[in-house]
Amino acid sequence: MGAGLVGSLLSIYLKKKGYDVAVYERRDDMRKSGVIAGRSINLAISDRGWKGLAGVGLEAAIRKLAIPMHGRMIHVLDGKLNYQPYGKEGQFINSVSRGQLNIELMNAAEKEGIQFHFNQRIVETDLNGTYALMENAIDNTTYKLQPDLIIGADGSFSLLRYTMMKTDKFNYSQQYEEHSYKELSMPATNNNSFQLEKNALHIWPRKSFMLIALPNLDGSFTCTLFHYTKGENSIDAIKNENDLNNFFKTYFPDAKKLMPTLEHDFFSNPTGSLVTVKCFPWVNGNSFLIGDAAHAIIPFYGQGMNCGFEDCSILNNLIDEHNHDWNKILPAYQTSRKINTDAIADLAKLNFIEMRDLVADADFQIKKKIAAKVAEIYPDKFIPVYSMVSFSQLPYREALEEYKRQDDVLNEILLLKDISAKWDTEYIHTIAEKLIKKN
Amino acid sequence: MGAGLVGSLLSIYLKKKGYDVAVYERRDDMRKSGVIAGRSINLAISDRGWKGLAGVGLEAAIRKLAIPMHGRMIHVLDGKLNYQPYGKEGQFINSVSRGQLNIELMNAAEKEGIQFHFNQRIVETDLNGTYALMENAIDNTTYKLQPDLIIGADGSFSLLRYTMMKTDKFNYSQQYEEHSYKELSMPATNNNSFQLEKNALHIWPRKSFMLIALPNLDGSFTCTLFHYTKGENSIDAIKNENDLNNFFKTYFPDAKKLMPTLEHDFFSNPTGSLVTVKCFPWVNGNSFLIGDAAHAIIPFYGQGMNCGFEDCSILNNLIDEHNHDWNKILPAYQTSRKINTDAIADLAKLNFIEMRDLVADADFQIKKKIAAKVAEIYPDKFIPVYSMVSFSQLPYREALEEYKRQDDVLNEILLLKDISAKWDTEYIHTIAEKLIKKN
Repeated sequence: MGAGLVGSLLSIYLKKKGYDVAVYERRDDMRKSGVIAGRSINLAISDRGWKGLAGVGLEAAIRKLAIPMHGRMIHVLDGKLNYQPYGKEGQFINSVSRGQLNIELMNAAEKEGIQFHFNQRIVETDLNGTYALMENAIDNTTYKLQPDLIIGADGSFSLLRYTMMKTDKFNYSQQYEEHSYKELSMPATNNNSFQLEKNALHIWPRKSFMLIALPNLDGSFTCTLFHYTKGENSIDAIKNENDLNNFFKTYFPDAKKLMPTLEHDFFSNPTGSLVTVKCFPWVNGNSFLIGDAAHAIIPFYGQGMNCGFEDCSILNNLIDEHNHDWNKILPAYQTSRKINTDAIADLAKLNFIEMRDLVADADFQIKKKIAAKVAEIYPDKFIPVYSMVSFSQLPYREALEEYKRQDDVLNEILLLKDISAKWDTEYIHTIAEKLIKKN
Repeated sequence: MGAGLVGSLLSIYLKKKGYDVAVYERRDDMRKSGVIAGRSINLAISDRGWKGLAGVGLEAAIRKLAIPMHGRMIHVLDGKLNYQPYGKEGQFINSVSRGQLNIELMNAAEKEGIQFHFNQRIVETDLNGTYALMENAIDNTTYKLQPDLIIGADGSFSLLRYTMMKTDKFNYSQQYEEHSYKELSMPATNNNSFQLEKNALHIWPRKSFMLIALPNLDGSFTCTLFHYTKGENSIDAIKNENDLNNFFKTYFPDAKKLMPTLEHDFFSNPTGSLVTVKCFPWVNGNSFLIGDAAHAIIPFYGQGMNCGFEDCSILNNLIDEHNHDWNKILPAYQTSRKINTDAIADLAKLNFIEMRDLVADADFQIKKKIAAKVAEIYPDKFIPVYSMVSFSQLPYREALEEYKRQDDVLNEILLLKDISAKWDTEYIHTIAEKLIKKN
């Protein structure tokens, strides 16, 4: 269920393992109807995403659609720029359009012989998840499917998950942020070049809200405003073009000059919500959940898709490990994966605060610089958390634990006398001794 | 929606305020089909419940169905009894059968001219909650209702709430305990008298599980076993009569002797789940939630029904305060009530640990005795938390805060030298000084 990123990728994995796979998608085929505009924050592919794609031989093809982003470019209110690398030399995340990536994955799946059925939604299953009652949105007919496995890769608002909610002892939570988002755009120059540094993720952090921009292949940037949904200073409070222009003039004067369609974008694009979904169990009889359907997270670590693709690689490994015995594969999948997807949900919430508020903070900047320096000098002994999440396959749970440990130590280090003057001297070795995890 | 305890009581409140009210219930009329057996933990009415009933003139009638329980009777493994009063002299909670209470409320509502429609369930509403699409379970026909207000008093698994889940920014969680329950029974003696002390709530606390018993008017007790759902030592692990008898002989030997139908009860009654539901907002356009539909809690403070009846009294007061202006009543209702229902949900979880584990603990018993003594000497200055919840109308939120404060102070007091020997001497005044809240 679901022809999104995870559903399309997983279908290829399963087909390559020898299974008959069919994909049912409740929406129309985006290749015919066009990608839904204004709700598609650009994605940032990092190592877990690449691994997922590499597992079905698609890494090289997708690399061609991606633009490397080596660091965060912070836009201070006075127009000054402040660049923070994401990792070591040669480590970067990759901007890619969700729509383009999805289309590539569907095309690749169809080449493998997988059938896609659009405008088909799941209405219900029995309580053991053994059949799916489907509805065809074109003629409103219903019919039953009885596959060996029903897989819910149908996103944050998963219909398969709604049917699971009616079973006993299904733990579930959906929690919305007070913030929503608006997608906006920044076109290329007349000769198709970028108006801002191409190889960076741009952030205008303004404490309780922020604007971000990610590069596209055509020289444009996709911008997203994250702001309170309601209240005195909010998306809701921007009622007309005058309000909008004043808000941007006050908080994003440099960006505003580069956004000629701001008024049109803001008032014609929908306002998006930010939701975290946690649930358990993911497996119910012959049906199970994967990707956002099992664990929707907010986008501030750029890990939603990466995490979903990692679900696919891990499931694929478990199929080998348990020799296609799904009675063993599924319990192992949900047990090992749940603690890690809970951890990335928490990390994404922490990173939202970091992005909109802390990146502009002097103490925070020193902490980041100290961590980067120690990682540079002792690459085998110290990995900053951002790198653990984005440039390694270490379990998210370990990254969350390391986040807490590193942050405690860094806060202690910040209290040391004259630290801002002397961290970048010989003293860095003393600091490193504190920061490197003891075994 | 819902002819349960809260739906039936609220219908009377609204009718008395001059509204046309009709009640739709998805189940059959329990007065005709019989009360569903084996899933009806007896209720303990305390002050908030009485206030709710008194508001429509039903307190006296229900008092006749209730048996006062003045304290907890703890059954130690060796058969010894240990009695702990709930409050001061004259303060008690009241055992009543859920089915009987519900029938009285429905009869009273019908006397007021309110129509009840059974076997009718809500299927959906539009996203603004302005109409209800209903289904008649007898002939499977559907029809639309368009009342001025749709009220979801349809319990923990509220169907109206499921329709709200599809609206944007609806925060929701349902979390199950690892424990489930089995209802069991202990008959009266041959001459219709009680086999245990009548005016107490009996508890057999065994750390991770417990048995409780509440008295009925006919001389019997309704017993409930709360135990892990699955695992080595669990309800699930009791597979046959032999397992059951060994389990009861080992842990509840005194109770077992008084339960001749134990085997039949255990294997024929369903296993009940324990769920906490939190959500917000409760109001969506013309529809709103009340009682368990808005805030289902686990039963260990005996407050589920009391809290739902308090919802009704508070809503009734807000109707007066805002002169029937529902655009003001509903926001005030959900805002003021949410923090308090969250608090009683947390208190109920804390009390579960207290009931099954701590009541048998020596330190805990001293703490309870100290609190009771201080309350006795300084009745105007100190109220134990249990009394705040059960014998006052103080907001639950205040009781939760007071729980944390009192528990911290009592834990400090316990560390004092020779405290177990000297708390019940003149020294109690020194203790009281610590325990009484400073303003």
